[in-house]
Amino acid sequence: MEKQKLLVAKIGGNIIEDEVALQSFLENFSKIKEPKILIHGGGKSATQLAAKLGVKTEMIDGRRITSAENLDIVVMTYAGLLNKRIVSGLQKYNCNAMGLTGADANVIRAEKRPVQFIDYGYVGDVVEVNDTIIKGFLNQKITPVFCAVTHDSNGQLFNTNADTIASEIASAMSPHYEVSLFYCFELKGVLENIKDKDSVIEHINLEKYNELRDAQVIADGMLPKLQNCFEALQKKVSKVHIANADFIKDNTTKHTTLSL
Amino acid sequence: MEKQKLLVAKIGGNIIEDEVALQSFLENFSKIKEPKILIHGGGKSATQLAAKLGVKTEMIDGRRITSAENLDIVVMTYAGLLNKRIVSGLQKYNCNAMGLTGADANVIRAEKRPVQFIDYGYVGDVVEVNDTIIKGFLNQKITPVFCAVTHDSNGQLFNTNADTIASEIASAMSPHYEVSLFYCFELKGVLENIKDKDSVIEHINLEKYNELRDAQVIADGMLPKLQNCFEALQKKVSKVHIANADFIKDNTTKHTTLSL
Repeated sequence: MEKQKLLVAKIGGNIIEDEVALQSFLENFSKIKEPKILIHGGGKSATQLAAKLGVKTEMIDGRRITSAENLDIVVMTYAGLLNKRIVSGLQKYNCNAMGLTGADANVIRAEKRPVQFIDYGYVGDVVEVNDTIIKGFLNQKITPVFCAVTHDSNGQLFNTNADTIASEIASAMSPHYEVSLFYCFELKGVLENIKDKDSVIEHINLEKYNELRDAQVIADGMLPKLQNCFEALQKKVSKVHIANADFIKDNTTKHTTLSL
Repeated sequence: MEKQKLLVAKIGGNIIEDEVALQSFLENFSKIKEPKILIHGGGKSATQLAAKLGVKTEMIDGRRITSAENLDIVVMTYAGLLNKRIVSGLQKYNCNAMGLTGADANVIRAEKRPVQFIDYGYVGDVVEVNDTIIKGFLNQKITPVFCAVTHDSNGQLFNTNADTIASEIASAMSPHYEVSLFYCFELKGVLENIKDKDSVIEHINLEKYNELRDAQVIADGMLPKLQNCFEALQKKVSKVHIANADFIKDNTTKHTTLSL
């Protein structure tokens, strides 16, 4: 039997922190009839709240060093302010959204990232996604909206990278659905030339990825993002796209599609 | 056919803001085998965050005047920090808790409180509780944990009194379950003499309530609390108890039971 389609979309700061862009995205997202899941970050808002509260924000390679105080700020911002803004915004467009952290219904279990050279603090790496309970929500016509917070099942919450959560959820759902994973990006896709916003590389397979990495066309923040994409493909996610927000209403806009 | 039992418990600041009391409550609550729902407030934490952010808190008759800035603080505190602390705490004790605002899965719809003499700002009065979706969660062995935030289905979140949410949920679930509503209180129950912490009035019916109110034994914050209790009883909630946290582990401690 053919599997039903499922869209797993991840949005970041460029959408969440721009009220007009967010409303437009939520309206377009809510029009998608197939089952769907949204994952969001919100690092910039967390950094702003930290500044207002006089709490220091320390980033290493784009990752937040998460002290107990920073964790509270992350939880307030991601699970509170932003998640509920997105959920109530989707409800407005008749999409029955429900916000979740990994602790809610024990849906994403993680463990503290081991200390090698750097102690990231309360940063969790995903151990297990509860696909059965997510499938139950989708069957109830609910659209789960995940923020970048997980837990260890023992009372500890963690800050967890939203790109990774999206990849892990997409992978966990792929035995049940034909999953498309869409990373909503500030640019049109992965660029051949960072100075030319239209130089989108339309297809990247694993071989091409290795070439681009060796030639340093792909560097910095794009490396872990693409790593997440290929991990998802290896775990049987059908399609992975990196594209700007327009992709949600019109799949024909120029964008990057990844394959093994 | 006899209905299954359902416990609806509400906790306030005296439990939530005391780490030892909270852990003890969550452990005892998680031991209850029947389906259960938890509702929590958290006003003191919201006031503290407002003070840190330099945002003015204005209360009239114990109700928060909720500006847009105050609403963000309420959402961050209730739906973020406190709700996720409670949910992850319950998960630790193997209770499959899931945090919800009224916007999540459109579970509590409210409308802005009409302005008569006072404009409370973004304060919502409950219009509708979605009993079907809550029943679905309970059937999945999920324990819903509600914070005091609702929405209007049109993108607007509201601050809503937690006592009222507890009463409305208990009432909405009573066609499906034999519902006990438990208001966890800092005292042992309603007191005959406010100076004597042991002078618990063990039973209050509607007639007795009117007497006590006329004699001003019940006044101030207890009036709306008891009003919520009687409204729940009129809407077929089986039992309503006002008791301190020990009641959750030992129903025999002295407390106040209400009846029509």
